[in-house]
Parts: sequence; C-alpha cells; structure tokens
Amino acid sequence: MDMQDGSREVMLVEVGMRDGLQNEPTPVATASRLAMIEALLAAGVRRFEVVSFVHPGMVPQMADAEALVAGLPDRPDASYIGLTLNERGLDRALATREGGRRGIDEVGCVVVASETFSRRNQGRGIGAVVAATRAIVRRARSEGMRSTVMISAAFGCPFEGAVAPQRVLGLVEELAAESPDELSLADTIGVAVPAQVEELFAAARARVPHIPWRAHFHDTRNTGIANCWAAVRAGVRRIDASLGGLGGCPFAPAATGNTASEDVLYLLHRSGFATGIDLAAMIAATKRMEQIVGHALPGSLARAGDFVPRPSAATSGTP
Amino acid sequence: MDMQDGSREVMLVEVGMRDGLQNEPTPVATASRLAMIEALLAAGVRRFEVVSFVHPGMVPQMADAEALVAGLPDRPDASYIGLTLNERGLDRALATREGGRRGIDEVGCVVVASETFSRRNQGRGIGAVVAATRAIVRRARSEGMRSTVMISAAFGCPFEGAVAPQRVLGLVEELAAESPDELSLADTIGVAVPAQVEELFAAARARVPHIPWRAHFHDTRNTGIANCWAAVRAGVRRIDASLGGLGGCPFAPAATGNTASEDVLYLLHRSGFATGIDLAAMIAATKRMEQIVGHALPGSLARAGDFVPRPSAATSGTP
Repeated sequence: MDMQDGSREVMLVEVGMRDGLQNEPTPVATASRLAMIEALLAAGVRRFEVVSFVHPGMVPQMADAEALVAGLPDRPDASYIGLTLNERGLDRALATREGGRRGIDEVGCVVVASETFSRRNQGRGIGAVVAATRAIVRRARSEGMRSTVMISAAFGCPFEGAVAPQRVLGLVEELAAESPDELSLADTIGVAVPAQVEELFAAARARVPHIPWRAHFHDTRNTGIANCWAAVRAGVRRIDASLGGLGGCPFAPAATGNTASEDVLYLLHRSGFATGIDLAAMIAATKRMEQIVGHALPGSLARAGDFVPRPSAATSGTP
Repeated sequence: MDMQDGSREVMLVEVGMRDGLQNEPTPVATASRLAMIEALLAAGVRRFEVVSFVHPGMVPQMADAEALVAGLPDRPDASYIGLTLNERGLDRALATREGGRRGIDEVGCVVVASETFSRRNQGRGIGAVVAATRAIVRRARSEGMRSTVMISAAFGCPFEGAVAPQRVLGLVEELAAESPDELSLADTIGVAVPAQVEELFAAARARVPHIPWRAHFHDTRNTGIANCWAAVRAGVRRIDASLGGLGGCPFAPAATGNTASEDVLYLLHRSGFATGIDLAAMIAATKRMEQIVGHALPGSLARAGDFVPRPSAATSGTP
C-alpha cells in the first residue's frame, strides 16, 4: 500500500446539510436540519457544511441561512462551514459572529475549473472568480475566519468534457499563493475514475504539500467509493460525504448525489482508518433523514447493514 | 500505477443470466433469456454464465437449463459457462454436447471458503467439496471441457465473519494442484474493501501465477467498483459483472446484486482498459432487461449515462 501520508485517521466532512439538501426539490425546515446536525454530532461528526450564503432567489433551500446558523450547537469541538461565493456572502458569514455569537467557523469558496461551467454556474469566467476568491481568502484571514477553496469540475465538465490536469494544477498554484487553510478538488458531476483521482491528487499535493487537501466526490457513475479510496491512497485525509447520499435519488434520470457518508465510513473503517464516527448511529440518522425528505436515499449501508468481521470459534483451528 | 499485469485488456464475464437471474423472485422465460444473450453478444460480450446444473427444486429459475443451452447461438467466438456443483451437474453439462451439439463450453465449480457457509450452501464441509471439485475438474479435462473454480466467501462469511486469508490461500494451492483452466476469488456477500482485495489477489497470484485469475464482486456495500479496480491493480484481467446489477434491488432490505456490467465498463474504459464491449449497447440492454423483470435495476450508468471526455474548442488555449 503506497499511502503517501502515514496517518491512519481520516476526517469526514459532512456536506449533506448543504450540498445534499440544496438539491432536494423541497426545502427542509430549519428545525429539522438543526435536529439532524445534533444527531450527526452525537454520531461523532465534527465538521459540517451547513449553509450557503448565496442569493435566496437562487437557492431557496438555503434562504434561512442566518436562522440556521443562529441555532447551531455551540460546541468547541465542532466546525461549521458556510459556502461563500462573493464578498456579499463573506459579509453575511462574518455577520453571523457579530455580538459575540458563535456563528460560522469557516468560509468555503468555489472556483470552477472549466470556463463554460464557471460562466453558467457563477456568471463569471475563471479569471474573475479566482481574483474574487483570493480577495475573500485574504479578508477572511484578516477577520480571523478560516477559509477553504474547492476547485470544482476538476475531473470533467458537463459542457466542455475533459478538463486538462495542467489547468487544474495551474489553479492550484494560483490559489495556494493566497494560503487558504485548505484546498479541495471536486468531481462535481461524478465522472472521475480512481486512476485519474490518484494521479491528480498526487500531483496537486506534490506542488502544494504545505496546505491540507480535501476531496469531494459524487457517486453518479458508481465510482464515488473507488475515488475516495484513490484519494486516500494519494495521501488525502479529509473527505466530503453526505448522509445517505443526500442530493441524489437512485431513480432520478441523472442521480447526482454526493458519496454517502455511511458508505465512506464502511470503506474507511474496514480498511483500518479511524474517523471517530459511529457507523450504526449514522445509519440511524439516515433513516431519520429519509423520513424528513420523504423518500429513500441512495446510500448502501443503511439498507445492507454493517459487516463486522469478528473472529469466531467456528473458524479457529480450521485450515 | 503498480499494475502487476501489463495488459490493457480486461475480459468481462457476464454472470447476470445465471447469478443475477437466479436471485430474481420470478423465473424469466427461456426465450427472453436467449434474446438477452443475443443482445449481449451484439454488444460485444463474449463470455457468459448462462445456467446452473443444480436440482430444479433448489433453483427453479434454472429448471430449464437444458432448453436454454439448446437455444444458445452457436458462435465460435463465444464461451458459455454452466455452474456445476457435483458429478450429476457435470453429467448434465456434458450431455448438452451429445450428438455433436454446441452445448456448454465450460463448467464453473464453487468451493466456499467458510465451513459453516459451505455446509449451509452445499450441504457438505469444505474438505468434501474440495475433493468433489477436484474430481469434476479432472473428469471435465478428460472429456475436453474447460473448468473454472471459484472460491466463494473469500473475503467474509455471513455466519463466521472474518475468513482468514491463510485459509483461502491454502484452498488456492490445493485447487491449483488440479490445474483448472481458471481460478476465481469471490466476495459473495459484498463485504470486501479494496485494500483487502488487492492484498489477497496479489498473494494468490504470487502462489499460482500460471493459472488465469478472475474476480467476482457484489456491490452490496457500494465497494464493488473499488474492488474491481483493486483486482485490476493486482493484475487480474477477468472480471465478473451482471447486466444492470441484476440480482439486487436498490430498495431490498439486503441488496446483494453483482456489480453492474455497465458500471464496470465505465470504470475500465475511462481508465484506459479495452473490453471490446459497447457501453451504449449495454445500457440499452439493461433498459430491455428492466422491462423483462418488471422493475428498475440498481446499476448507475443506465440512469446517469456515459461521460465522453471529448476535447473541446472551448477548453483549448485557456490556462
């Protein structure tokens, strides 16, 4: 096993409450989302994407961002991320901490690696987004707020097809120059395969070894778990996942859910990696989430159950 | 990429018509299965598990084994496997070739690596099954029929939990002594993880490098594709898969489907491996199969569609 990073601990970043629920057709009530975050904390999750500070007209599912943040448990061991695509978003993120309130701990920024997708998704080309993101990272740091930058569509674009690794690595260097607290590569549309993931993350880590790396996969074409494992092989120790695979429906025409948290936990725990998260509690949380959204979620573990390879008297002594 | 075998070609063995359909609650008509085999041949599939020669009372879905074999297209470039668990099964497999008929090309034997599972599944302990399997392999060879032996539950057992790699490797050596035409390791209950797969296949290939190896995974806990990739990394170039993931239902309490053929093809093709199989034709075949069985199948590609990373004018020239 040519693990690039010797650590046997992986941090799971639960993105279901933002990236997942943002793709649910019906907004989920603030109170229900807060109850789920409590359940996830009880299961051992410590880092969450909780809201996006974008225009409520664009993402009605997140229109209550401030109300949700105000209700977040004030745990010193938890970290809450708010997605922030522009200065106005950063203003809102910073405002959640005014008056000595807990508020948001980190801002998450996104740079799309394909020009067409960037213009369609953020209304601006890559160059303009990089400049704006650098400004957000600088200002966040000056205000004492951590920042993370995700390079989205890093493994393929729905409009342009292939995304050249050299372009992604160019963005990596440009963004690393601003020293965000974390960098991430995302397979936003679920097209990556593990060899590609291992290669690109290895190259990115070789160029920027001093900033922690995070990986974000969608299970659209059933490669999510293979890609998580490839990222771990390449030394990545921070992995995004969403409870039950929220954000995708197994029978939707183009299922686009994040890789399911329980499925990632099964892979990691059975492979000898610790996460501090209890799989049984996550399966129970998924079943609760299915009640809330009113439909089954695509993750596998909540249906199949865990497998505990306990040694048994029946096996010992047999050749 | 530390590929143990330099070849960039992988043979997909389509097991949906046997392992898959055997787990469908309702038997599928002989004519429908033959029509599907024709469609799979047209898509480029060249090797199939088509029937099992077991007691029709045990597996009513395969009660028409002889009738199905009689209707198989007499293609010189195709190979048809019949599952054969005992001498009586071998008699039936050999009988399909009587009178100069095409019949079955290969017999597939199964040795379960866990004592409890072996007794429950085959009514005999491991030792008795190994002895019977060696006799079948010998007699098949003397009759000019190829044989393949699968070691099932090689990565975990539903009754005993962990299955010691040393026990599996012991079975590998014992079975290899009989020189079957192929050996296979199977994750029958879908519990394996990629590190385990890579390690066990590497050890098995190191002990028996002169017999071709085949891998068989179930996607029960979403590790099927990661495990296929781990097997390819360990040098395996023959992979079982079932059309649409036949044999498992996404919402069944314990989905036990084989890894879906289209999902395996997407992984392989995008990773630079050739299979000779057309993915679009396989997706069309899955949709036809869904009509026949009357429900959706769990594979991902038939829903999400292929991703072709064509280079585009929009990307060239941009940094």
